[in-house]
Amino acid sequence: METVTQTYRIAVDCMGGDKGPGEVVQAVSLALKELRAGDKLFLVGQEEVLQPLLRSAGIAGDSRIEVRHAPDVIEMDDKPMQAMKSKKHSSMIVALEMLKAGEADAVVSTGNTKVLVGAGTLKVRLMPGVQRPALSAIFPRKTGYSIVVDVGANPETTSEQLVHNTVLGALYSISILGTEKPKVGLLTVGTEEGKGGERINRANAYLKALNERFDWFEYAGPVEGFDVFQGDADVIVTDGFTGNILLKTVEGLVYMLKDLIGEKVKRNPIYIAAGLVLLPLLKAVKRQVRPERFGGAPLLGLNGLVFKAHGSSNKHGTAAAILMARNACSKNINRKASELLAVANDVVAEVQESF
Amino acid sequence: METVTQTYRIAVDCMGGDKGPGEVVQAVSLALKELRAGDKLFLVGQEEVLQPLLRSAGIAGDSRIEVRHAPDVIEMDDKPMQAMKSKKHSSMIVALEMLKAGEADAVVSTGNTKVLVGAGTLKVRLMPGVQRPALSAIFPRKTGYSIVVDVGANPETTSEQLVHNTVLGALYSISILGTEKPKVGLLTVGTEEGKGGERINRANAYLKALNERFDWFEYAGPVEGFDVFQGDADVIVTDGFTGNILLKTVEGLVYMLKDLIGEKVKRNPIYIAAGLVLLPLLKAVKRQVRPERFGGAPLLGLNGLVFKAHGSSNKHGTAAAILMARNACSKNINRKASELLAVANDVVAEVQESF
Repeated sequence: METVTQTYRIAVDCMGGDKGPGEVVQAVSLALKELRAGDKLFLVGQEEVLQPLLRSAGIAGDSRIEVRHAPDVIEMDDKPMQAMKSKKHSSMIVALEMLKAGEADAVVSTGNTKVLVGAGTLKVRLMPGVQRPALSAIFPRKTGYSIVVDVGANPETTSEQLVHNTVLGALYSISILGTEKPKVGLLTVGTEEGKGGERINRANAYLKALNERFDWFEYAGPVEGFDVFQGDADVIVTDGFTGNILLKTVEGLVYMLKDLIGEKVKRNPIYIAAGLVLLPLLKAVKRQVRPERFGGAPLLGLNGLVFKAHGSSNKHGTAAAILMARNACSKNINRKASELLAVANDVVAEVQESF
Repeated sequence: METVTQTYRIAVDCMGGDKGPGEVVQAVSLALKELRAGDKLFLVGQEEVLQPLLRSAGIAGDSRIEVRHAPDVIEMDDKPMQAMKSKKHSSMIVALEMLKAGEADAVVSTGNTKVLVGAGTLKVRLMPGVQRPALSAIFPRKTGYSIVVDVGANPETTSEQLVHNTVLGALYSISILGTEKPKVGLLTVGTEEGKGGERINRANAYLKALNERFDWFEYAGPVEGFDVFQGDADVIVTDGFTGNILLKTVEGLVYMLKDLIGEKVKRNPIYIAAGLVLLPLLKAVKRQVRPERFGGAPLLGLNGLVFKAHGSSNKHGTAAAILMARNACSKNINRKASELLAVANDVVAEVQESF
């Protein structure tokens, strides 16, 4: 349980974002306003780059900041194994090592997702009862938000791993979004039983049995693509292949719509008149669709808290990820997750025997 | 080859749409304006329902129309096998029987997709070299349109079936969208080789080998979700599980954005002023995102032409599907497809041996 005096230490990988370390330092400056006196942010990256940025951001003297030098830089096209071997002194690997060594309570990185998933798993290790990590993303829906797990950490998710994703996603929904009793949907191609293949059928059987044991979440059964934005599930469970394609397609569509509207406004004089009025409307819609206040996607299933901030995050998005990590530290969801996963694996084994 | 005098007969399933047979009859009325003198539309459905609708649409006397009585009606929640057994005299089954018997050259249906895929496969049969049918959908992208195959006919698509989807999708892109040399992308979670699992790796190897044999399409390699709307592939090949979830998620998002914008316009007085200006803009965007001129999704891989019009199609959408079917009749893509599939299967077998 959190006490009033509890403080936390977060290692921030400062070199990974598309917008460069300057934007991450700006994010740190924003986050500091919300953090407690005893909290600590380790800024991991090239010291000669970070120090001047801290000075120009006016936070060089803040006692809650400490720079940790990491000379290597991981590039977006680096392969995980290669980066881990040849770039041991990169900001991401150093930050993960700090988490592993207990020097930090959480890591926030805007870096290469694949390297973060690979290195995070190898360095921080999987929590007991989990076979693969899962990346989550928060999607807006008609009323509120839903968490989609997995959006790309594990492309070949088995039925059993879909159950793990359910436990991790539901727990995350409770602790981060404050959902009371999360409603979980299993993403597939038809809501009647028997659709979607053997893998989905098995996962459906496991989840029904698990829901009989656990009453802290509600299994809503199979859901369809339409339900991601139009349904009422708080957690959408899927494999990392489908989830990743979904996330990126939606991202591409949002960009296309933005361009389309912008172009039409530009081309047609009648729209220019409305342009000034349109702008805040579009911004409001965009805020709701890609909410920066949920700037971090936790890598679920690890023995430590690792948050991925979107590579193209601006300072607000990355600041949100830092505060989300701080919030997660105080919830201690990992211990609870291990207990629940053990029960889930028992249920899976029981149902497997009955097949 | 098509001659100037060639005419075609299309069986239209009039009872399946969400908007009822009246909307389908309106669509027929629109389509008749574009059809040739010798073309024929068989309106399949309950005669007592259709005749008054034809009279009120003012097309009862058109010699190109013939009503075929089908008393049974398939409901949206009917299961395929059940519908085929207990509703033999439904408009959909009668239309498919006409295609099978050679009385019609194509079928257009707004009915239950699952029943259409199941009954279409059983009645019309798969073309030689194909193992499963595939549904295609047309997505708008930054420049032009892309065809996504499969969007739900076959949720457990194998590597070999992904190759069949490629041949069918590319051929369809040439014949219907007029693409000269279609660029085909294989949808996955990362563009570097080795990502996405065994099934994708094998399909990638097959497609590379096939592209060496065929120069009428260009294999662009693996593509990501972002490329569906932002890329330049004319054909996006995927399994029916991912494709279906993708299609429905995008549909849900478009509805949500529409509602969101509508709501904001309603709630905030400043937007009401701009509302009249906004409306045509939103309509223009909507037109581009869900183009009714591509109202039909062909069920690829069958021995006959079966087009699925969206269940919620209005008259323009269904009319577009009828004209698309007419256009496809004149292209005779099915014979060409069988030849190409035979070559594709040879290539798959050769590559398989080398694994």
